[in-house]
Amino acid sequence: MDNRPIGVFDSGLGGLTAVKELRRLLPQEDIVYFGDTGRVPYGSRGRDTILAFAAQDMAFLKRHDIKMVVSACGTVSSVMTDQLARSIGVPFTGVVLPTAQAACAASTTGVIGVIGTSATVHSGSFARAVRNIRSDARVLGRPCPLFVPLVENGYIAPGNPVTKLVAQEYLSAFDDEPEMDTLILGCTHFPLIYDIIADYFHYDITLIDSGKATARYVEGFLTEQGMLARREKPGETEYYVTDAADDFSSVAQRFLGSPLGDQVHRIPIEELGALPQERK
Amino acid sequence: MDNRPIGVFDSGLGGLTAVKELRRLLPQEDIVYFGDTGRVPYGSRGRDTILAFAAQDMAFLKRHDIKMVVSACGTVSSVMTDQLARSIGVPFTGVVLPTAQAACAASTTGVIGVIGTSATVHSGSFARAVRNIRSDARVLGRPCPLFVPLVENGYIAPGNPVTKLVAQEYLSAFDDEPEMDTLILGCTHFPLIYDIIADYFHYDITLIDSGKATARYVEGFLTEQGMLARREKPGETEYYVTDAADDFSSVAQRFLGSPLGDQVHRIPIEELGALPQERK
Repeated sequence: MDNRPIGVFDSGLGGLTAVKELRRLLPQEDIVYFGDTGRVPYGSRGRDTILAFAAQDMAFLKRHDIKMVVSACGTVSSVMTDQLARSIGVPFTGVVLPTAQAACAASTTGVIGVIGTSATVHSGSFARAVRNIRSDARVLGRPCPLFVPLVENGYIAPGNPVTKLVAQEYLSAFDDEPEMDTLILGCTHFPLIYDIIADYFHYDITLIDSGKATARYVEGFLTEQGMLARREKPGETEYYVTDAADDFSSVAQRFLGSPLGDQVHRIPIEELGALPQERK
Repeated sequence: MDNRPIGVFDSGLGGLTAVKELRRLLPQEDIVYFGDTGRVPYGSRGRDTILAFAAQDMAFLKRHDIKMVVSACGTVSSVMTDQLARSIGVPFTGVVLPTAQAACAASTTGVIGVIGTSATVHSGSFARAVRNIRSDARVLGRPCPLFVPLVENGYIAPGNPVTKLVAQEYLSAFDDEPEMDTLILGCTHFPLIYDIIADYFHYDITLIDSGKATARYVEGFLTEQGMLARREKPGETEYYVTDAADDFSSVAQRFLGSPLGDQVHRIPIEELGALPQERK
């Protein structure tokens, strides 16, 4: 038993899709969520910048006596180094391994698509993770950089003509791949436009939600390690963001499907703390 | 005469539209450009965050012995405080005043539209500046937050269907304003989709490019103050960015219309320096 909170971080709001699933699966857990809304998005940035930001984000979470760190960000998870993941001193998981496992379990043909930010797809992270599990798999990647600003600007209704048009352009990359039966949503923003993506494929393809897959992985990991929380009442979730907390609360409801309450705090970026020594 | 460089900064690449015009008008000037590509965009962030970033950006420019600071960013210019502008110790201009002057000079009817980021339009900065010059003016604002990611992702060709669709949605806000004869492009990204915007209005409306207007203002200011550079050969432009310099160079060409050469340096965000005391 371990009643310390689970630390979850993301470049902004996308990680809330993982939080939503964690709260459903593990209602007794306390969660500390950190969203770097002052510097979102990460997915269009270079690798060094992303790693420097991630190091600060994790250092901040570490101050909350967490039992585990979850990077609920496809971009951070894709460029994470073993050294940085270990430097935090508690178990770490990103979204890549859990999502690759879910995709391999779902696919019959072994032809699996990956969509995500530019940094994520260009890193080849999901393709490597899938092939580690299933060496005969064929993995097809397509960066979809505009999906993040479209979601953050609320262009998420199933029939939204702008998002549909952008989706057609991006997803047509898979038109000549009739064998592809599974598509990884490698960015935690993408589940908000699940229907638009699924509709393009006439719902014939299994979409893997990386936030959900990661939440299920965390459940399995904590169970196995004997680290689940045990308490009488439901756990609490606290939110920390680096930009105005008001803006966060209103958009966050869209991701969580329920109001946040008073648990949102703004933490200025300059107070995140120094980067761990390992980064120098 | 003053041979020190002009310092120009922006959240990212948009300010290059001002640099392009400065180099055309004042070829003998040295320019130091700072683009905070590691934290772009600013326009969707809260006021405190934008001011904190701007203070760091200007502190960095100040290290280069500049004679003037130009905020070539509609968002920063819109939320800038007198105190912060003065704290830098050299003359400051943003884009708001120069652009408002150009718009007032261009408008016959006094009905002027403003498009920009959410932070810019919600600040009311351009409306105030226009009414200070022309108290009978009527100013109509419309945030166009998706234009920035569309431009940064290269959706700028005149017939681009996605950008056209988004433009139709945004600009239809002005459909019931036949008197509007001038539109301020209050974000330095927007000149890259000039044709798409102009096309919506059948080219009947004067579009005011805030980068160009600001460059002309700087020319007038330096001339009046006797602060123009005088040297035998053309001035040089140095570029500093907070994300990978390679990515910057390739996209920057789109803004400048010419290659950058070897003058691009990456400066990690943690080396920007502390915020000036005035911000505390």
